[in-house]
Amino acid sequence: MVKREHFSAAICPISRALDHIGDRWTLLIIRDAFDGKARFTEFQSSLGIARNILTDRLRSLVENDIMYTAPTKSGSAYQEYRLTYRGKKLFPLMVALRQWGEEFLYSANEHHSLLIDLETGEELPIMQPINMSGRFVDPDRVLVVE
Amino acid sequence: MVKREHFSAAICPISRALDHIGDRWTLLIIRDAFDGKARFTEFQSSLGIARNILTDRLRSLVENDIMYTAPTKSGSAYQEYRLTYRGKKLFPLMVALRQWGEEFLYSANEHHSLLIDLETGEELPIMQPINMSGRFVDPDRVLVVE
Repeated sequence: MVKREHFSAAICPISRALDHIGDRWTLLIIRDAFDGKARFTEFQSSLGIARNILTDRLRSLVENDIMYTAPTKSGSAYQEYRLTYRGKKLFPLMVALRQWGEEFLYSANEHHSLLIDLETGEELPIMQPINMSGRFVDPDRVLVVE
Repeated sequence: MVKREHFSAAICPISRALDHIGDRWTLLIIRDAFDGKARFTEFQSSLGIARNILTDRLRSLVENDIMYTAPTKSGSAYQEYRLTYRGKKLFPLMVALRQWGEEFLYSANEHHSLLIDLETGEELPIMQPINMSGRFVDPDRVLVVE
Protein backbone atom coordinates (compact mmCIF):
# COMPACT_ATOMS: atom_id res chain seq x y z
CA MET A 1 0.00 0.00 0.00
CA VAL A 2 1.31 3.40 -0.93
CA LYS A 3 2.21 5.42 2.11
CA ARG A 4 0.29 8.65 2.23
CA GLU A 5 2.29 11.46 3.76
CA HIS A 6 -0.43 14.04 3.42
CA PHE A 7 -4.07 13.61 4.05
CA SER A 8 -6.54 14.37 1.37
CA ALA A 9 -8.31 17.63 0.86
CA ALA A 10 -11.40 15.50 0.36
CA ILE A 11 -14.66 16.99 1.48
CA CYS A 12 -15.94 13.45 1.97
CA PRO A 13 -15.37 12.35 5.57
CA ILE A 14 -15.33 8.68 4.54
CA SER A 15 -12.45 9.36 2.19
CA ARG A 16 -10.54 11.28 4.82
CA ALA A 17 -11.20 8.62 7.46
CA LEU A 18 -9.78 6.00 5.10
CA ASP A 19 -6.63 8.08 4.70
CA HIS A 20 -6.04 7.41 8.38
CA ILE A 21 -7.38 3.90 8.88
CA GLY A 22 -8.07 2.49 5.42
CA ASP A 23 -5.49 -0.21 5.75
CA ARG A 24 -6.14 -3.77 6.85
CA TRP A 25 -3.20 -4.00 9.27
CA THR A 26 -4.08 -0.69 10.86
CA LEU A 27 -7.63 -1.82 11.51
CA LEU A 28 -6.45 -5.13 12.93
CA ILE A 29 -4.05 -3.33 15.30
CA ILE A 30 -6.93 -1.14 16.47
CA ARG A 31 -9.06 -4.25 16.97
CA ASP A 32 -6.32 -5.84 19.07
CA ALA A 33 -6.00 -2.65 21.12
CA PHE A 34 -9.72 -2.80 21.89
CA ASP A 35 -9.16 -6.40 22.98
CA GLY A 36 -6.57 -5.25 25.50
CA LYS A 37 -3.34 -5.87 23.64
CA ALA A 38 -0.79 -3.12 24.18
CA ARG A 39 2.77 -4.39 23.70
CA PHE A 40 4.62 -4.53 20.39
CA THR A 41 5.18 -8.24 20.87
CA GLU A 42 1.51 -8.82 21.64
CA PHE A 43 0.45 -7.24 18.35
CA GLN A 44 3.20 -9.07 16.51
CA SER A 45 2.23 -12.51 17.76
CA SER A 46 -1.49 -11.84 17.36
CA LEU A 47 -1.20 -10.63 13.79
CA GLY A 48 1.80 -12.52 12.43
CA ILE A 49 2.90 -9.24 10.93
CA ALA A 50 6.45 -8.32 9.90
CA ARG A 51 8.27 -6.12 12.42
CA ASN A 52 8.87 -3.30 9.96
CA ILE A 53 5.23 -3.17 8.90
CA LEU A 54 4.04 -3.20 12.50
CA THR A 55 6.52 -0.46 13.39
CA ASP A 56 5.29 1.64 10.47
CA ARG A 57 1.61 1.20 11.28
CA LEU A 58 2.08 1.92 14.99
CA ARG A 59 4.04 5.05 14.15
CA SER A 60 1.23 6.26 11.88
CA LEU A 61 -1.35 5.48 14.53
CA VAL A 62 0.56 7.56 17.07
CA GLU A 63 1.15 10.39 14.59
CA ASN A 64 -2.57 10.44 13.83
CA ASP A 65 -3.50 10.59 17.51
CA ILE A 66 -5.32 7.26 17.38
CA MET A 67 -2.87 5.58 19.77
CA TYR A 68 -0.33 6.89 22.24
CA THR A 69 2.65 5.37 23.94
CA ALA A 70 3.02 5.02 27.68
CA PRO A 71 5.34 3.17 30.03
CA THR A 72 4.11 -0.27 31.05
CA LYS A 73 2.37 -0.53 34.37
CA SER A 74 5.03 -2.96 35.54
CA GLY A 75 7.63 -0.23 35.08
CA SER A 76 9.73 -2.22 32.63
CA ALA A 77 11.71 -0.56 29.84
CA TYR A 78 9.07 -1.50 27.30
CA GLN A 79 6.31 0.81 26.27
CA GLU A 80 2.68 0.17 25.64
CA TYR A 81 0.46 1.39 22.83
CA ARG A 82 -2.99 2.44 23.95
CA LEU A 83 -6.01 3.95 22.24
CA THR A 84 -6.51 7.69 22.60
CA TYR A 85 -9.94 9.26 23.00
CA ARG A 86 -10.14 9.54 19.22
CA GLY A 87 -9.06 5.93 18.90
CA LYS A 88 -11.70 4.70 21.33
CA LYS A 89 -14.28 6.49 19.21
CA LEU A 90 -13.62 3.87 16.53
CA PHE A 91 -15.64 1.40 18.60
CA PRO A 92 -18.77 1.73 16.42
CA LEU A 93 -16.63 1.01 13.35
CA MET A 94 -15.27 -2.14 15.00
CA VAL A 95 -18.79 -3.24 15.89
CA ALA A 96 -19.98 -2.58 12.33
CA LEU A 97 -17.15 -4.67 10.86
CA ARG A 98 -17.76 -7.49 13.34
CA GLN A 99 -21.52 -7.62 12.91
CA TRP A 100 -21.31 -7.61 9.12
CA GLY A 101 -18.74 -10.41 9.26
CA GLU A 102 -20.85 -12.41 11.69
CA GLU A 103 -23.98 -12.03 9.58
CA PHE A 104 -22.57 -12.89 6.18
CA LEU A 105 -19.20 -14.59 6.32
CA TYR A 106 -19.73 -17.69 8.43
CA SER A 107 -21.67 -20.79 7.65
CA ALA A 108 -24.38 -21.78 10.10
CA ASN A 109 -22.33 -24.21 12.15
CA GLU A 110 -18.99 -22.44 11.85
CA HIS A 111 -17.49 -21.07 15.04
CA HIS A 112 -16.55 -17.42 15.50
CA SER A 113 -15.66 -15.26 18.46
CA LEU A 114 -18.43 -13.34 20.21
CA LEU A 115 -18.56 -9.80 21.54
CA ILE A 116 -20.37 -10.02 24.86
CA ASP A 117 -21.89 -7.07 26.68
CA LEU A 118 -20.92 -7.30 30.35
CA GLU A 119 -24.15 -5.79 31.62
CA THR A 120 -26.50 -8.24 29.96
CA GLY A 121 -24.12 -11.12 29.27
CA GLU A 122 -25.47 -11.21 25.73
CA GLU A 123 -24.34 -10.22 22.26
CA LEU A 124 -25.24 -6.79 20.98
CA PRO A 125 -28.17 -6.42 18.59
CA ILE A 126 -27.25 -5.29 15.09
CA MET A 127 -26.17 -1.65 15.28
CA GLN A 128 -28.16 0.58 12.91
CA PRO A 129 -28.08 4.28 12.20
CA ILE A 130 -31.02 6.25 13.53
CA ASN A 131 -32.26 9.71 12.64
CA MET A 132 -33.00 12.64 14.93
CA SER A 133 -36.49 11.22 15.47
CA GLY A 134 -34.98 7.98 16.74
CA ARG A 135 -36.11 5.94 13.74
CA PHE A 136 -33.87 3.53 11.88
CA VAL A 137 -32.47 5.02 8.70
CA ASP A 138 -32.43 3.06 5.48
CA PRO A 139 -29.64 3.81 2.97
CA ASP A 140 -32.31 4.66 0.40
CA ARG A 141 -33.61 7.41 2.68
CA VAL A 142 -30.50 9.57 2.91
CA LEU A 143 -28.76 12.04 0.66
CA VAL A 144 -25.16 13.23 0.57
CA VAL A 145 -25.02 17.00 0.21
CA GLU A 146 -21.81 18.67 -0.81
CA MET B 1 -1.87 -4.79 -1.40
CA VAL B 2 -1.45 -8.52 -1.67
CA LYS B 3 -4.39 -10.16 -3.37
CA ARG B 4 -5.98 -12.75 -1.15
CA GLU B 5 -7.36 -15.68 -3.08
CA HIS B 6 -8.65 -17.50 -0.05
CA PHE B 7 -10.36 -16.06 2.93
CA SER B 8 -9.00 -16.64 6.35
CA ALA B 9 -9.99 -19.36 8.71
CA ALA B 10 -10.10 -16.61 11.31
CA ILE B 11 -12.60 -17.02 14.07
CA CYS B 12 -12.61 -13.24 14.43
CA PRO B 13 -15.38 -11.72 12.30
CA ILE B 14 -13.51 -8.41 12.05
CA SER B 15 -10.55 -10.17 10.50
CA ARG B 16 -12.73 -12.04 8.06
CA ALA B 17 -14.67 -8.91 7.15
CA LEU B 18 -11.38 -7.18 6.37
CA ASP B 19 -10.45 -10.02 4.04
CA HIS B 20 -13.41 -8.91 1.93
CA ILE B 21 -13.43 -5.15 2.36
CA GLY B 22 -10.19 -4.20 4.12
CA ASP B 23 -8.89 -2.21 1.20
CA ARG B 24 -9.21 1.53 0.75
CA TRP B 25 -10.32 1.40 -2.90
CA THR B 26 -12.88 -1.26 -2.18
CA LEU B 27 -14.43 0.82 0.58
CA LEU B 28 -14.47 3.92 -1.64
CA ILE B 29 -16.20 2.00 -4.43
CA ILE B 30 -18.82 0.84 -1.92
CA ARG B 31 -19.24 4.44 -0.73
CA ASP B 32 -19.77 5.59 -4.32
CA ALA B 33 -22.31 2.83 -4.88
CA PHE B 34 -24.29 4.04 -1.86
CA ASP B 35 -24.14 7.50 -3.39
CA GLY B 36 -25.81 6.18 -6.55
CA LYS B 37 -22.83 5.63 -8.83
CA ALA B 38 -23.13 2.46 -10.87
CA ARG B 39 -21.12 2.68 -14.11
CA PHE B 40 -17.44 1.81 -14.47
CA THR B 41 -16.74 5.29 -15.81
CA GLU B 42 -18.57 6.89 -12.89
CA PHE B 43 -16.38 5.09 -10.37
CA GLN B 44 -13.31 5.85 -12.42
CA SER B 45 -13.89 9.57 -12.62
CA SER B 46 -15.02 9.81 -9.00
CA LEU B 47 -12.00 7.99 -7.62
CA GLY B 48 -9.24 8.80 -10.09
CA ILE B 49 -8.32 5.13 -9.94
CA ALA B 50 -6.39 3.20 -12.58
CA ARG B 51 -8.57 1.08 -14.84
CA ASN B 52 -6.85 -2.18 -13.95
CA ILE B 53 -7.22 -1.59 -10.22
CA LEU B 54 -10.86 -0.64 -10.57
CA THR B 55 -11.48 -3.73 -12.72
CA ASP B 56 -9.82 -5.90 -10.10
CA ARG B 57 -11.74 -4.42 -7.17
CA LEU B 58 -15.08 -4.60 -8.95
CA ARG B 59 -14.43 -8.22 -9.87
CA SER B 60 -13.68 -9.04 -6.22
CA LEU B 61 -16.79 -7.20 -5.07
CA VAL B 62 -18.92 -9.24 -7.46
CA GLU B 63 -17.19 -12.51 -6.52
CA ASN B 64 -17.84 -11.76 -2.87
CA ASP B 65 -21.51 -11.03 -3.47
CA ILE B 66 -21.22 -7.42 -2.34
CA MET B 67 -22.06 -6.03 -5.77
CA TYR B 68 -23.73 -7.53 -8.82
CA THR B 69 -23.84 -6.53 -12.44
CA ALA B 70 -26.98 -5.67 -14.34
CA PRO B 71 -27.82 -4.08 -17.69
CA THR B 72 -28.28 -0.32 -17.57
CA LYS B 73 -31.81 0.93 -17.36
CA SER B 74 -31.32 2.74 -20.66
CA GLY B 75 -30.69 -0.58 -22.35
CA SER B 76 -27.23 0.35 -23.59
CA ALA B 77 -24.46 -2.20 -23.98
CA TYR B 78 -22.85 -1.05 -20.73
CA GLN B 79 -23.50 -2.72 -17.44
CA GLU B 80 -24.04 -1.31 -14.02
CA TYR B 81 -22.60 -2.37 -10.70
CA ARG B 82 -25.09 -2.31 -7.86
CA LEU B 83 -25.00 -3.29 -4.21
CA THR B 84 -26.44 -6.66 -3.27
CA TYR B 85 -28.39 -7.22 -0.06
CA ARG B 86 -25.12 -8.06 1.65
CA GLY B 87 -23.55 -4.94 0.21
CA LYS B 88 -26.36 -2.70 1.43
CA LYS B 89 -25.82 -4.12 4.89
CA LEU B 90 -22.51 -2.24 4.92
CA PHE B 91 -24.45 0.97 5.49
CA PRO B 92 -23.69 1.07 9.24
CA LEU B 93 -19.99 0.71 8.41
CA MET B 94 -20.19 3.65 6.00
CA VAL B 95 -21.95 5.74 8.64
CA ALA B 96 -19.33 4.82 11.24
CA LEU B 97 -16.49 5.84 8.92
CA ARG B 98 -18.23 9.09 8.00
CA GLN B 99 -19.11 10.11 11.54
CA TRP B 100 -15.63 9.40 12.87
CA GLY B 101 -14.14 11.44 10.04
CA GLU B 102 -16.57 14.29 10.64
CA GLU B 103 -15.87 14.35 14.36
CA PHE B 104 -12.09 14.23 14.29
CA LEU B 105 -10.59 15.02 10.90
CA TYR B 106 -11.90 18.48 10.02
CA SER B 107 -11.09 21.79 11.56
CA ALA B 108 -14.00 23.83 12.89
CA ASN B 109 -14.50 25.98 9.81
CA GLU B 110 -13.52 23.38 7.21
CA HIS B 111 -16.21 22.23 4.81
CA HIS B 112 -17.23 18.62 4.39
CA SER B 113 -20.13 16.85 2.77
CA LEU B 114 -23.16 16.00 4.89
CA LEU B 115 -25.31 12.90 5.07
CA ILE B 116 -28.87 14.11 5.34
CA ASP B 117 -31.80 11.99 6.47
CA LEU B 118 -34.70 12.59 4.10
CA GLU B 119 -37.37 12.17 6.76
CA THR B 120 -36.08 14.82 9.14
CA GLY B 121 -33.88 16.84 6.78
CA GLU B 122 -31.15 16.67 9.40
CA GLU B 123 -27.87 14.87 9.93
CA LEU B 124 -27.90 11.62 11.83
CA PRO B 125 -26.89 11.60 15.48
CA ILE B 126 -23.70 9.69 16.24
CA MET B 127 -24.39 5.98 15.82
CA GLN B 128 -23.52 3.98 18.91
CA PRO B 129 -23.79 0.30 19.75
CA ILE B 130 -26.51 -0.62 22.21
CA ASN B 131 -27.03 -3.74 24.26
CA MET B 132 -30.09 -5.97 24.52
CA SER B 133 -31.47 -3.66 27.20
CA GLY B 134 -31.24 -0.73 24.77
CA ARG B 135 -28.44 1.01 26.64
CA PHE B 136 -25.34 2.42 24.96
CA VAL B 137 -22.36 0.11 25.23
CA ASP B 138 -18.96 1.42 26.14
CA PRO B 139 -15.90 -0.41 24.75
CA ASP B 140 -14.73 -0.98 28.33
CA ARG B 141 -17.95 -2.89 29.06
CA VAL B 142 -17.61 -5.69 26.53
CA LEU B 143 -15.59 -8.85 26.28
CA VAL B 144 -14.54 -10.91 23.26
CA VAL B 145 -15.12 -14.60 23.93
CA GLU B 146 -13.47 -17.19 21.72
